[in-house]
Amino acid sequence: MRIGLDMMGGDFAPTEAVKGVKLYLDTVASDVHLVLIGDEQQLTPLLAEAQLDQSKYSVVHSSQIVGMNEHPTKALKEKPQSSISIGFHLLKNEKVDAFISAGNTGAMMVGTYYSIKGIEGVQRPTISTPVPREDGSYGLLLDVGINADCKPENLAQFAQLGSLYSEYILKRPNPKIGLLNIGEEEGKGNLLAQATYPLLKENKQINFIGNVEGRDVFTSKADVIVCEGFTGNIILKMAESFYDIAKHRGINDDYLNKFDFESYGGTPVLGVSKPVIIGHGISKGIAFKNMLALAEQMLQTKLLEKITASFGNKEA
Amino acid sequence: MRIGLDMMGGDFAPTEAVKGVKLYLDTVASDVHLVLIGDEQQLTPLLAEAQLDQSKYSVVHSSQIVGMNEHPTKALKEKPQSSISIGFHLLKNEKVDAFISAGNTGAMMVGTYYSIKGIEGVQRPTISTPVPREDGSYGLLLDVGINADCKPENLAQFAQLGSLYSEYILKRPNPKIGLLNIGEEEGKGNLLAQATYPLLKENKQINFIGNVEGRDVFTSKADVIVCEGFTGNIILKMAESFYDIAKHRGINDDYLNKFDFESYGGTPVLGVSKPVIIGHGISKGIAFKNMLALAEQMLQTKLLEKITASFGNKEA
Repeated sequence: MRIGLDMMGGDFAPTEAVKGVKLYLDTVASDVHLVLIGDEQQLTPLLAEAQLDQSKYSVVHSSQIVGMNEHPTKALKEKPQSSISIGFHLLKNEKVDAFISAGNTGAMMVGTYYSIKGIEGVQRPTISTPVPREDGSYGLLLDVGINADCKPENLAQFAQLGSLYSEYILKRPNPKIGLLNIGEEEGKGNLLAQATYPLLKENKQINFIGNVEGRDVFTSKADVIVCEGFTGNIILKMAESFYDIAKHRGINDDYLNKFDFESYGGTPVLGVSKPVIIGHGISKGIAFKNMLALAEQMLQTKLLEKITASFGNKEA
Repeated sequence: MRIGLDMMGGDFAPTEAVKGVKLYLDTVASDVHLVLIGDEQQLTPLLAEAQLDQSKYSVVHSSQIVGMNEHPTKALKEKPQSSISIGFHLLKNEKVDAFISAGNTGAMMVGTYYSIKGIEGVQRPTISTPVPREDGSYGLLLDVGINADCKPENLAQFAQLGSLYSEYILKRPNPKIGLLNIGEEEGKGNLLAQATYPLLKENKQINFIGNVEGRDVFTSKADVIVCEGFTGNIILKMAESFYDIAKHRGINDDYLNKFDFESYGGTPVLGVSKPVIIGHGISKGIAFKNMLALAEQMLQTKLLEKITASFGNKEA
């Protein structure tokens, strides 16, 4: 397995990216080879200093960087030697099996759309967040921001994608799928939720348990919670703010500490045919390490093959 | 001023309603006369036991109760002697100036729509929640559930209603109005938010400060946050769940304790011509007291006249 990592993406690159690589190589025993994409002049001394096993990685030089606030499409077009452009080029040409960056999110999405094939049958890719629960397990919430307006069919597909991710990556057998709504009974909610409910109910590939409400997000009532990206993004950012509030008020609680979503790493783009993982701009070493581990897990579990089969079966 | 209170509404009625009346009469010095609507046989001993100033209240007997799970329209039609039906009858006929109930929320909404005139120019009434902030002040979030699907014009009106409520009831001079969105710049967000932004920007009656995100809900970035009722309801219930989580984890923090939204009392229905306040089903004494104080404040500040003028001015 070869995982490509953008060493120049994120506010603390390349220092924290190198730290992440070290953490990953030190703690994860695997046959993964890392392809580190970045400015050689900057990387060489940092990598030397980190004393890594040189057989475990190679460096691909990139001479440009897509800035965090650059216009995604324009930047990718004008900067073919940027670490993100090169990363997608390598992924497209099968020089790497997965690509990770904590750089410009928009550029990562544009790169994904233009370089990587969608999975047949999936109308729109989606991004998700793990949801910490008191029992130590993780739920999944999706979409969390790239699909602000959705049709019922989109939500039904997110449910299916989320179900497979929950099963294979979060290790929830037969995950319970809930539709985020404002009321428990079928027929409640806004027009989108009302129209989505029957689609989820009739989808035999998922274990639909009905509506869940705002108070259920952090419980284990559902393992996967489905919503459009507007509400999902509001929820995610509000949950992150609770971590800040707790920290600010001097509350040190094992569970609330898990609301530090930024440490999780990044979100995979689900619904495309290769693993692409987008990190927070402020990713630190642990986040880079977690993203590397996630890419490895996505490859090892053959998640994308399972998603492809799931959507293929449905059409058949 | 005469405030009508449904003594039979809510899970702990009439005991907690009586406690609320006592708390209110003991701590609030005002010329308010309370009209307590409920079953005389049940109320008489409780009121006697509470040793209230008998000049401050009168009892209006009701022989029926609308159950918490009854169909609203059907229940109001079939139970004209219920405390909710009688309350709206009194309000309509100017025997009381405001009406409060912690009973069946749907029946309260139906009663409001059918008995109380809307304010001219307001397309849809809305409900809101106060949002606790670390500095001790309160923001306002609306709509929180009765308008699951909204048009941009609805959100613009909620902004105007919320602005006046914030100014006169929450005492925020020139309140900052924010549009809940997933991105800071104009043009971001879902179609609804994109279309609402210019309406808020051009409304001269409000102090619009732009978009706010999920992480800003509990900050003082905006004093009033506007959204459709789907997202607003999810936020409210999720915030309530944080109180439960904190409590459950043995965290006792002055600020987080304020996330016990159920103690606040109830939400006024904004956009109608008379004060109607709907309480949580699980309202306890303090919530009833707070609702009585809120009704008094709405009458004293002449909030509804100010709302009427605000919408009248706009049309002129």
